[in-house]
Amino acid sequence: MILTLDNHLSLADVKKLIDRLEWMGLRVVRDTDSQGNVILVVVQGTDKQTRLEAFSQLPGVVEVKHFDTPYKLAGTHVHQHKTVIQCKDHKIGGKKIVVMSGSCSVESERQIMETAKQVSAKGATILRGGAFKPRTSPYDFQGLGEIGLKYLQKAAEANHMLSVSEVMDPADIDMVAEHIDILQIGARNMQNYSLLKQLGKVKNPVLLKRGLAATYKEFLLAAEYILNAGNPNVMLCERGIRTFETYTRNTLDIAAVPILQELSHLPVIVDPSHGVGIRRMVAPMCYAAVAAGADGLLIEAHPDPDNAMSDAQQTVSPETLGEIMQHLAPIAQAVGRSMV
Amino acid sequence: MILTLDNHLSLADVKKLIDRLEWMGLRVVRDTDSQGNVILVVVQGTDKQTRLEAFSQLPGVVEVKHFDTPYKLAGTHVHQHKTVIQCKDHKIGGKKIVVMSGSCSVESERQIMETAKQVSAKGATILRGGAFKPRTSPYDFQGLGEIGLKYLQKAAEANHMLSVSEVMDPADIDMVAEHIDILQIGARNMQNYSLLKQLGKVKNPVLLKRGLAATYKEFLLAAEYILNAGNPNVMLCERGIRTFETYTRNTLDIAAVPILQELSHLPVIVDPSHGVGIRRMVAPMCYAAVAAGADGLLIEAHPDPDNAMSDAQQTVSPETLGEIMQHLAPIAQAVGRSMV
Amino acid sequence: MILTLDNHLSLADVKKLIDRLEWMGLRVVRDTDSQGNVILVVVQGTDKQTRLEAFSQLPGVVEVKHFDTPYKLAGTHVHQHKTVIQCKDHKIGGKKIVVMSGSCSVESERQIMETAKQVSAKGATILRGGAFKPRTSPYDFQGLGEIGLKYLQKAAEANHMLSVSEVMDPADIDMVAEHIDILQIGARNMQNYSLLKQLGKVKNPVLLKRGLAATYKEFLLAAEYILNAGNPNVMLCERGIRTFETYTRNTLDIAAVPILQELSHLPVIVDPSHGVGIRRMVAPMCYAAVAAGADGLLIEAHPDPDNAMSDAQQTVSPETLGEIMQHLAPIAQAVGRSMV
Amino acid sequence: MILTLDNHLSLADVKKLIDRLEWMGLRVVRDTDSQGNVILVVVQGTDKQTRLEAFSQLPGVVEVKHFDTPYKLAGTHVHQHKTVIQCKDHKIGGKKIVVMSGSCSVESERQIMETAKQVSAKGATILRGGAFKPRTSPYDFQGLGEIGLKYLQKAAEANHMLSVSEVMDPADIDMVAEHIDILQIGARNMQNYSLLKQLGKVKNPVLLKRGLAATYKEFLLAAEYILNAGNPNVMLCERGIRTFETYTRNTLDIAAVPILQELSHLPVIVDPSHGVGIRRMVAPMCYAAVAAGADGLLIEAHPDPDNAMSDAQQTVSPETLGEIMQHLAPIAQAVGRSMV
Repeated sequence: MILTLDNHLSLADVKKLIDRLEWMGLRVVRDTDSQGNVILVVVQGTDKQTRLEAFSQLPGVVEVKHFDTPYKLAGTHVHQHKTVIQCKDHKIGGKKIVVMSGSCSVESERQIMETAKQVSAKGATILRGGAFKPRTSPYDFQGLGEIGLKYLQKAAEANHMLSVSEVMDPADIDMVAEHIDILQIGARNMQNYSLLKQLGKVKNPVLLKRGLAATYKEFLLAAEYILNAGNPNVMLCERGIRTFETYTRNTLDIAAVPILQELSHLPVIVDPSHGVGIRRMVAPMCYAAVAAGADGLLIEAHPDPDNAMSDAQQTVSPETLGEIMQHLAPIAQAVGRSMV
Repeated sequence: MILTLDNHLSLADVKKLIDRLEWMGLRVVRDTDSQGNVILVVVQGTDKQTRLEAFSQLPGVVEVKHFDTPYKLAGTHVHQHKTVIQCKDHKIGGKKIVVMSGSCSVESERQIMETAKQVSAKGATILRGGAFKPRTSPYDFQGLGEIGLKYLQKAAEANHMLSVSEVMDPADIDMVAEHIDILQIGARNMQNYSLLKQLGKVKNPVLLKRGLAATYKEFLLAAEYILNAGNPNVMLCERGIRTFETYTRNTLDIAAVPILQELSHLPVIVDPSHGVGIRRMVAPMCYAAVAAGADGLLIEAHPDPDNAMSDAQQTVSPETLGEIMQHLAPIAQAVGRSMV
Repeated sequence: MILTLDNHLSLADVKKLIDRLEWMGLRVVRDTDSQGNVILVVVQGTDKQTRLEAFSQLPGVVEVKHFDTPYKLAGTHVHQHKTVIQCKDHKIGGKKIVVMSGSCSVESERQIMETAKQVSAKGATILRGGAFKPRTSPYDFQGLGEIGLKYLQKAAEANHMLSVSEVMDPADIDMVAEHIDILQIGARNMQNYSLLKQLGKVKNPVLLKRGLAATYKEFLLAAEYILNAGNPNVMLCERGIRTFETYTRNTLDIAAVPILQELSHLPVIVDPSHGVGIRRMVAPMCYAAVAAGADGLLIEAHPDPDNAMSDAQQTVSPETLGEIMQHLAPIAQAVGRSMV
Repeated sequence: MILTLDNHLSLADVKKLIDRLEWMGLRVVRDTDSQGNVILVVVQGTDKQTRLEAFSQLPGVVEVKHFDTPYKLAGTHVHQHKTVIQCKDHKIGGKKIVVMSGSCSVESERQIMETAKQVSAKGATILRGGAFKPRTSPYDFQGLGEIGLKYLQKAAEANHMLSVSEVMDPADIDMVAEHIDILQIGARNMQNYSLLKQLGKVKNPVLLKRGLAATYKEFLLAAEYILNAGNPNVMLCERGIRTFETYTRNTLDIAAVPILQELSHLPVIVDPSHGVGIRRMVAPMCYAAVAAGADGLLIEAHPDPDNAMSDAQQTVSPETLGEIMQHLAPIAQAVGRSMV
């Protein structure tokens, strides 16, 4: 249910109204609609049987609408306009397509600094690098941890880039958020609800990766957990799903791009590196993703891709990144976007 | 194993050599390599243990090479150059991206004639329409049969288009081939080997659709059945695979495009209509397919899409087809192709 | 829609009624209900909007019921009692669990004769063996063809067994049916509707294997094609579906057994050999299948399993078959069935 | 690599040897082999190139063996005998098949007390109940939290049962472990490595559920995280995987039972309730699971199943549980196990 409020209502009156609704057992989120009106979204406590008329009588309420999308905040009923996430002087979700690039792992200070310099020179504006790595085996390299975050931060700042890195443990959120601009939630943790709920306590944008067997609905409900916890800055990242095909690491679901754009107002990022897992396929899948309407790309790149500590087989060189950027420009333009 | 022959060999000597190899129990296909040399491809009867030297002693043999790709004729070991299928004055697999369009079923003479006129006006050059329909239920409309083929033929010829229609029964191949330019093998019949083998007796190009749970390898081996039966004019059509996601009819595997282009020399066509099954998603998936390198598109269109007899929910109007064509031009150009 | 007829109606009157319904554009199948009454099942031409009252006025009609299961003949609305297929003096679908066993391919007269003798001695009553093999590659052994069928027939008869073998081409049905008792439709051909439709012209029982990505509904509708074509003797065979797991050849869906038993009256057979593809796992999966309620098992066995020409890795020895049979007896009894 | 030590070695010498290996950069786990010899398992720091001879010279080392299973502790190279987990006076993994039963959620003190009494009367010895619920939507009932754990503990103790309940947040492990005997890790958290690692700090047995798209290898490596963290008491729980079939909630992979039994020494539990998601199918799938060799079952039961707060459609009544137990007895016996 969405209650549109009278524009003349004082803040105190809005507060009083929210208190009253919560006293009735409802859970209410305050928001603004496309026309700039203050609205109250009742996300919990009502159902199809709820009589709307009762609510239209409340003081200050000018309109009452019912809606039953399961993803109340991530869906387009409340937010009809696309969300543009502002982070420092960067925008994600606007006309310009953002390119996030960097190595799978932060390997050393020197390595990530060199990577940042090179991918930045090719047009990437957000630097990725893993310091906490979710590895299938406990015996594989688990990342450098906090020191890796510091290297990443330093490398990003030195090149006027934003940084993005994964957080795996609720207890680490504050520490990661201190060093890193954008917090990544990996595919394996998409339904780690304890982690999602605690992302509400920071304001950093969150890059939420789709679980490897998650439906669109489950993906949007995972985003809903974060939004509902109080952090509105969520990006959805399609990174391939698990199917019967084993030639590729995953099956990159390009149709997810226009579908998520239709179901949600959140920016949609595509990760072709994990999505296919084959270096030579990164370029064509970047083109496909942008042609299908993606707001951004996440591309694993390394100054010496063959010797990257992890994901070498899907990591491109800065040169290849540069070629991809060049090819992307006319494609972006064809669908009403731009690369710069 | 590939035997490159001496250019001075007479046809009689080539014949004698083939006879000798077959007498040894081998299965041999005669072909031409990229340099124009006559080669003999031994597709059956040798393995890794076979000693190549023995064959280099045969009269007229100048070079012997081993290869162990399972798809000997569909792979790129024998044919390094991309195949361009010539049919009447149309080319499939060349620089120009071909657009096949039309309704799911041929509904009536008037309907298909109108459809042909309208999709042709928007730039489609191949007319699709089903006369034999593989329906999940025996109680659903099974198609008009032979009369439908005649309507389709007439409509295609009237608009200087090629025609494409599905054949389901080995016994129907000759009859369908008499009326229709391109024979379609549906996803459900991709491993109907009796049908595939008998496509060797005609020369019509074959549009082979990927089975809904077929790996790339199985797909290419299905093509191999047709090539091995003597029909070299095969196109591969990605039309979506079956996954856990139920929001879409299938999951369109766009990565199949560059991967099949790398593994094989055969043209790759994409069917976004079946691939997603949602009308509004056809346009973005067409853009993605072309950006990823597809040689052609198969788009279900109908003058009155809401009232199409089958697949209405994924069928676009001729107007939408026209808009798609316009958007495709710069994308095709960005990847070195053209729409006209 | 089901029309129950007056028991006193003459055959001529029944015929007249059917003619009248068909003249109205309906498709009608004559059947008998659980109480022995003659019923007419309208499988095509009516829908939810059809007014039942109009039909209750027809002469000889005592009751009219609507039903909307898509699988009208395979479902349990018309046939509430389980089907027991009688073939020679064997019963399939009764209290006794049938065991079909034999080698993947008929390799030679001697081999299949030896196989028959040995599996028969362990309690198998139906002999399997492939003469037409659907192989993923055109270069793999395609089976002995008709001579293989004759060997299989001879071996089965010599051991008082039924025979089962695959048919792949509609043109081969009569020939295969002449030699073989039970016609097998392979997983790859489950939606080869041309083949399914033409199984109506013979009366041999059909063993229909589930397609590797077929839902229960699609599986039952494939059975419906055969039933609707006039052959009521269909068995459903669960043989594993394709999933992301590659350790096993397929994922054997044991839940399919009780679910198909609930949705349909047709006997349900399980093929653990193809279902898992690992020899050591055949025994436990046989136990699971019978515990879950299967009517029969299809077990690949060979006198010299390591040297079987195809499927060696999933083929058991006659000794193992014997041990499986022994363990099965108390499990069958626990679920109200028997092995002999 | 496994180093078998001389039985006469003193504890101090063993310690010295471990220190030396760790100083060399290896990660070592101390264990006992099937003959009762002390062994050191080098889980990290060696590879195929490591020369074994160098290690056989170390003081106190009598044998050195290489092995390269990725799951070093969960696999059968180190532990050839099946693990029997002892918890209070209960054994899991022994001859007796354990039945865990109870409601999806702990709904109230009275409800769980009544549930415990009834399922205990039917033979269940472990009481399940969720207090922290991982729900797909943030607006669904999230469980009673700590108070729910206390109710569960009380109900289990009153009926001489063990208790099992899910833990979702690393920060909650100590608190849950204080009240509950067996800690459950849900399917969504199977690759939540932060959570897995911190299970090493408690000794409670862990019921690890298979992720809904996890391969056997990934599943065993998730168990390896817990074992490697220092908690040897891990049970593997097959609870269905996600496939294309939507009739069932999941596809219960019964073949996982004998395969995991072969690959690992850990007890294997089956959850047919989540595995199929259909109440009527719970019984046959219990039979199948035990026939295939499961060590235990997890069955959702509720005194009033239709009104269970969650998972009502897959919850059985205590009466049905009783019938299942009766049918299971002869099946268990047929495969060398017992129910009591």
